Amino acid sequence: MTELHNDLFLRACLRQPVERTPVWMMRQAGRYLAEYRETRKRAGGFLDLCKNPELACEVTLQPIDILGADAAILFSDILVVPEAMGMELTFGAGEGPKFPAPIASRADVERLPVPDPEQELDYVMAAVRAIRRALAGRVPLIGFSGSPWTLATYMVEGGGSKTFSKVKGMMFNDPDTMHLLLAKLADAVAAYLNAQIANGAQAVQIFDTWGGILTTRDYREFSLRYMRRIIEQLTREHEGRRVPVILYTKGGMGWLEDIAASGCDVVGLDWTIDIDRARARIGDRVALQGNMDPAMLYARPARIREEVRDILRRFGHHNGHIFNLGHGITPDVPREHAIEFFRAVREESPVFHR
Amino acid sequence: MTELHNDLFLRACLRQPVERTPVWMMRQAGRYLAEYRETRKRAGGFLDLCKNPELACEVTLQPIDILGADAAILFSDILVVPEAMGMELTFGAGEGPKFPAPIASRADVERLPVPDPEQELDYVMAAVRAIRRALAGRVPLIGFSGSPWTLATYMVEGGGSKTFSKVKGMMFNDPDTMHLLLAKLADAVAAYLNAQIANGAQAVQIFDTWGGILTTRDYREFSLRYMRRIIEQLTREHEGRRVPVILYTKGGMGWLEDIAASGCDVVGLDWTIDIDRARARIGDRVALQGNMDPAMLYARPARIREEVRDILRRFGHHNGHIFNLGHGITPDVPREHAIEFFRAVREESPVFHR
Repeated sequence: MTELHNDLFLRACLRQPVERTPVWMMRQAGRYLAEYRETRKRAGGFLDLCKNPELACEVTLQPIDILGADAAILFSDILVVPEAMGMELTFGAGEGPKFPAPIASRADVERLPVPDPEQELDYVMAAVRAIRRALAGRVPLIGFSGSPWTLATYMVEGGGSKTFSKVKGMMFNDPDTMHLLLAKLADAVAAYLNAQIANGAQAVQIFDTWGGILTTRDYREFSLRYMRRIIEQLTREHEGRRVPVILYTKGGMGWLEDIAASGCDVVGLDWTIDIDRARARIGDRVALQGNMDPAMLYARPARIREEVRDILRRFGHHNGHIFNLGHGITPDVPREHAIEFFRAVREESPVFHR
Repeated sequence: MTELHNDLFLRACLRQPVERTPVWMMRQAGRYLAEYRETRKRAGGFLDLCKNPELACEVTLQPIDILGADAAILFSDILVVPEAMGMELTFGAGEGPKFPAPIASRADVERLPVPDPEQELDYVMAAVRAIRRALAGRVPLIGFSGSPWTLATYMVEGGGSKTFSKVKGMMFNDPDTMHLLLAKLADAVAAYLNAQIANGAQAVQIFDTWGGILTTRDYREFSLRYMRRIIEQLTREHEGRRVPVILYTKGGMGWLEDIAASGCDVVGLDWTIDIDRARARIGDRVALQGNMDPAMLYARPARIREEVRDILRRFGHHNGHIFNLGHGITPDVPREHAIEFFRAVREESPVFHR
C-alpha cells in the first residue's frame, strides 16, 4: 500500500481536524477541459472512454494535475450498471443516453440479472486499479454509483425525461414491480461499490440525481430506503481505513434529517440551502459536502472567490466540510474560473481551521 | 355585477369556512383535453390562441364544464408581457418559446418600455372581459403573470435553459443591470395584473417557475423582492371583495416562511413537501394551494382518489386549503383521470369541513 500524501478529503469526511478545507468538484473530469476533449476524441465515443481503463485513468487524473483537486473521482457513467444487467445503452452525438428497449413489465424486471462486477464491469475495476497506481498516493480516489431510483428512471423511461410519466406510472400502479426493480438495483449497486472498494476506491458517493422529483413519502419508500439497503451492505473498512459513504440527493434538501440518518458519513448538498442552515439541522451527525451554485463558475474570478468565502464563513470554524459545487460543472465554464474556484478554497479556508 | 354562485375558491383563499375544499388545476385548459386541441387548431398557433379573446375564452371555460373546476384561470402565456415590451416571440412546432433577440446588455434593458396593458395587451383584457361574461358568476376568474425573475430567465436566455448560464452570468457579473431589468418587469407585471383585476379577474397568481434554481440569498434578492414589489402595487379590493394574491415558487419549499411573509394571501406548494408540514410552518398566516404530484394523474383512478384523501387528511380540519396539483397537468394524462381527480376532491373533502 502506498502512503496517502494528501488525506484532507478523508479526514473531513470523518469530521476530523484539517489544515484547510478539501475541495473537489462533481464532473471535474469533463468537457470544460480541453485535455478531456482531446482524450475523449482518441477514445471514440463517450462510452468507449468509460470502457477504456487507460484513457479513463488519464481523464480522472487531469483535474488533479490542472486544478489541484484534493480527491480524484473515478471517470465513468452511472448507466454502465444497467448495461451490465443486459440493457443495450447508446449515447447519440449531442443527445442524452438512450435505452432502446426500456423496462416495461414485471417480466422485464424478473429477467434482469444482478451482475458480477468483476466480470461484467471488469473494465471499471481495471480503471480503478490503474487510477490508484497512477495517483501513487497523491490524493484519495472516490468511487461512485447512481442510486437505485435514479437508475430506474432511465431504465423505465428509456432515457431522460421531463415528466417521468412511465417510471412514476409504474411506481403508482405497480409498486411491487418497482420494489423488485429497486431491490435488484440496490444489490447490484452494493456489489458494484464493494468491488470498487476492493480494487482501490477509498470513499464512495451515491448520486441520487432524481430523488428530488418525488414526494416525501415516495422519496422515503422508493429512493432513500434502497440507498440504505446499499449502505448496509457496503465494506466500511479497507486498507486499515474507514471508507466514507457520501449520499447526494439533488433537490432533496427538505429531507436532510432523513438522509443524515441513512448510515452515510457525508451528506451532499445542492445549492438551494445555506450550508449554515444545513449544519444547524444535521451537521453534528455527519459531514457536509458542497454547496456552491455551479452557475457561479460563470461569474468573474473575484465574484467566485467572494462566494467561496461566504460559504466558508457560513460553515464556520467546524470540522466536516468538503467544498464542492452543488451539482456538476457545466461544459461551457471557462477553465480559469474552475482553477480560481480551487485556488480560492485553498487560500481562503486555512483561517477557519486554526 | 353578476352574483357569484360558487365562491368556495375565494373563501378558501381568505381562510374562511367552506362546505368542501375548492379545486382547480394549473394548466387545466390544456392539451390533455381534445376540446382544447380542437379550439387551438381553429386558432392557428399557440400564440394565435392567446391573442384571440373569443377562443381564449372558449378554452378557459372548457375545464369548468368538463371537470367542474371551482375557479377558471385566464388562458394566456407568461411571455406575452416581454412581447408587449417589444421583444419578438416565437413558438416553433414542438419547441419551446424563443426570443430570437434576447436581452444581452444594459442598453437592451434601458430600451425596454413598461407597456400600457390596456394598449399592448388589449387582447388579454378583452379575453378577461369575455370570460367574466361567459362565466356569468358560475365560478371566479383567476388572472396571472410570470414572476419578474422567471420572465427574465426567458428574456436573457432567449428561451428555455438547462444551465441558466446567461441569466445567472448577468446576475453575478452585472447585478445592477439585472436589478434594472427586474424592477422594470415588476412594474410592468403590477400594471398588467391591475388591468386584469380592473377588467374582471377576481384573484391573481404569480408563477415563479424558476425561482427554485437560485440560492437562498439570490432568491430573496432577485426573485422574492420583486414579487413583493408587485404585491405592494396591486389592487387588493375590487367589486366590493378582497382580490387574493397567490404566490407560487416551484422548488421554493425551503423558503416557505419568506414567501408567506411577502404580503400574499395564498402560498402555492409544489409536491415535494407534505402539506401538513407546510401548514405547521406557515399555515396560520396564509392559505395553502396544492399539492398533489402532477404525475399522480398517470395512476389508476383508485390510486388518485387515495392520494387526494391522504392530502385532505394531512391538511385536516382547517380553513384555507385550495386543492390543486403541485405543477401543471401534462399533455398525455388521460382525460378521465383528470375528471376523477376533481370528483375525488368534491366527494372526499366535505367531511373535513363539518
